[in-house]
Amino acid sequence: MITIAVDAMGGDNAPRPEVEGSVLAARELGVRVMLVGQPHAIRTELAKHDRSGLKIEIVPASEVITMNDHPAQAFRRKKDSSVHVAARLVREVKADGLVSAGNTGAVMTVARFLLGTLESVDRVALAAPFPNAKGGVSVLLDVGANVDSKPEHLVQFAVMGEMYYRATFGNRKPRVGLLSIGAEESKGNELTREVNERLKNAHMQYVGNVEGGDLFSGDVDVIVCDGFVGNIALKICEGLAMGIFGLLKKSLKSSLVSQLGALLSQGAFKGLKKTIDYTEYGGAPLLGVRGVCVIGHGRSNANAIKNAIRVAAGLAKAHMNEKIEQELSLVTERA
Amino acid sequence: MITIAVDAMGGDNAPRPEVEGSVLAARELGVRVMLVGQPHAIRTELAKHDRSGLKIEIVPASEVITMNDHPAQAFRRKKDSSVHVAARLVREVKADGLVSAGNTGAVMTVARFLLGTLESVDRVALAAPFPNAKGGVSVLLDVGANVDSKPEHLVQFAVMGEMYYRATFGNRKPRVGLLSIGAEESKGNELTREVNERLKNAHMQYVGNVEGGDLFSGDVDVIVCDGFVGNIALKICEGLAMGIFGLLKKSLKSSLVSQLGALLSQGAFKGLKKTIDYTEYGGAPLLGVRGVCVIGHGRSNANAIKNAIRVAAGLAKAHMNEKIEQELSLVTERA
Repeated sequence: MITIAVDAMGGDNAPRPEVEGSVLAARELGVRVMLVGQPHAIRTELAKHDRSGLKIEIVPASEVITMNDHPAQAFRRKKDSSVHVAARLVREVKADGLVSAGNTGAVMTVARFLLGTLESVDRVALAAPFPNAKGGVSVLLDVGANVDSKPEHLVQFAVMGEMYYRATFGNRKPRVGLLSIGAEESKGNELTREVNERLKNAHMQYVGNVEGGDLFSGDVDVIVCDGFVGNIALKICEGLAMGIFGLLKKSLKSSLVSQLGALLSQGAFKGLKKTIDYTEYGGAPLLGVRGVCVIGHGRSNANAIKNAIRVAAGLAKAHMNEKIEQELSLVTERA
Repeated sequence: MITIAVDAMGGDNAPRPEVEGSVLAARELGVRVMLVGQPHAIRTELAKHDRSGLKIEIVPASEVITMNDHPAQAFRRKKDSSVHVAARLVREVKADGLVSAGNTGAVMTVARFLLGTLESVDRVALAAPFPNAKGGVSVLLDVGANVDSKPEHLVQFAVMGEMYYRATFGNRKPRVGLLSIGAEESKGNELTREVNERLKNAHMQYVGNVEGGDLFSGDVDVIVCDGFVGNIALKICEGLAMGIFGLLKKSLKSSLVSQLGALLSQGAFKGLKKTIDYTEYGGAPLLGVRGVCVIGHGRSNANAIKNAIRVAAGLAKAHMNEKIEQELSLVTERA
């Protein structure tokens, strides 16, 4: 039975969605969940649910890392935080993976230092799944701010992203692309031209350079980039999507007729909102750490937590890390 | 009187919008326009308009660069293209600026080589104006694919972007930001950390690092980045905006009730479309060339061409290039 340690204190509304999502996961996915955090708060939430027959236990952690904590400081100073304790459970093989909707930088820092990285991996990478125009999911990595990446780092990101995609979205041959500024091989900067050469020889379905506009096309499943570019790309998407919805809302409110129109079409808006609902995609995995770590959005609701647990359990079950080690040792041999 | 050379053969629907936009510009802005291209095609379009009293003339060019032409090849092989001839008019000071809605890469190449760069500028930069959430315009540069930029290049982009913003949007103290991955000074990659240090001492209202999500906030007017990042950012915006509108359209069509709703709210959609209408912003200036060069979208309509002419005339009238030279010589002295 797969066991997932859930940081019960991480998200904006913790521990409510964390606890409810864990109950749902234990019931629907048959996993065992360790809820890590302040026992009293967790118990109060748990009491609201029927947990008969479910494998849920509480693991105490006295401290809480907030969204405002500085990642490196939180790592050094809050050693009994729910994130620290959850990461230790994974390190001691008491849990197969950890899920947190907390401070992304802090979770990354704690996971990287307490779990360590895989032997063949130089830098861990954060992968962001998002919906595409074909109704599927594409993944961008690294979005975790690995700046000034070297070619070998991006090659490792490609291998890790491909393995995660296979394990999570049931696609045995995901198409992997390199984010650049033109489809032709000659296009790009020094870094991407070198990575392009190396990925052509990698053991995956590499489709070459893709452009910013291809991110949402659904023609590529895994898109690889340096963390500086990936972080900017991700933030632009969030900002623009919110901006367009805001403008739309304002426009629709501007006259009585269009208010009526908005009322009538709100079913359609709900459909759209579901289509681009991040809670369905199960959070962003931190790839390359020794163990499984999935980071959810701070705004995660119970459904998002449940899906993050599903993704973490799936990665553990698929032995993703062993496969990454195997594939990267081949890449190194070929190089 | 300001004279603008318009590449009549550049856009997807050339020469119709080019000719109509030029007539509008000559009438409303009081500029003189040289329509450059195949005389017969231009004359046919001109005949549809009343041009009495307007300063419009035709300058023949026998060749046409298409959207599919490779920029460097087009530059070398089509020496009598409308872009080449228009650029020569600027070089020979027969025109104060050039406007083209043609192949962006080819126009950039021709302008850079035929006009040359300003003495204090190492690399020309393409600046993209776009609407922000406060109802104003923000500008991102470079989006023209200057890859592997050095710190001094980004400092030059900042100075040029600021001067263009001042001359075009009537703001004497535009706020200039550096696109990075966190607001703190310590955040960013090697390049941006170095540029941040230099811009702090520059003679402008520098607001420091901004993130991808700030692009549309309206809290910053000029956003500076390397061309690799800028090109990806621009393409992501185009792709995402189209994707969201596509999803919305599909959602709205999915039921009879929401079809009716869509019908009633279509006024609001038109309002929204106007808000984000690129034709209002007058194209992207290529900054740092000796002369004025404004590049419009291939889909430019007459209004977009007129506005591009307005921007080009404004930059010429404001003596932007002299001001850039002046300011950059100060930056160099201070460095």
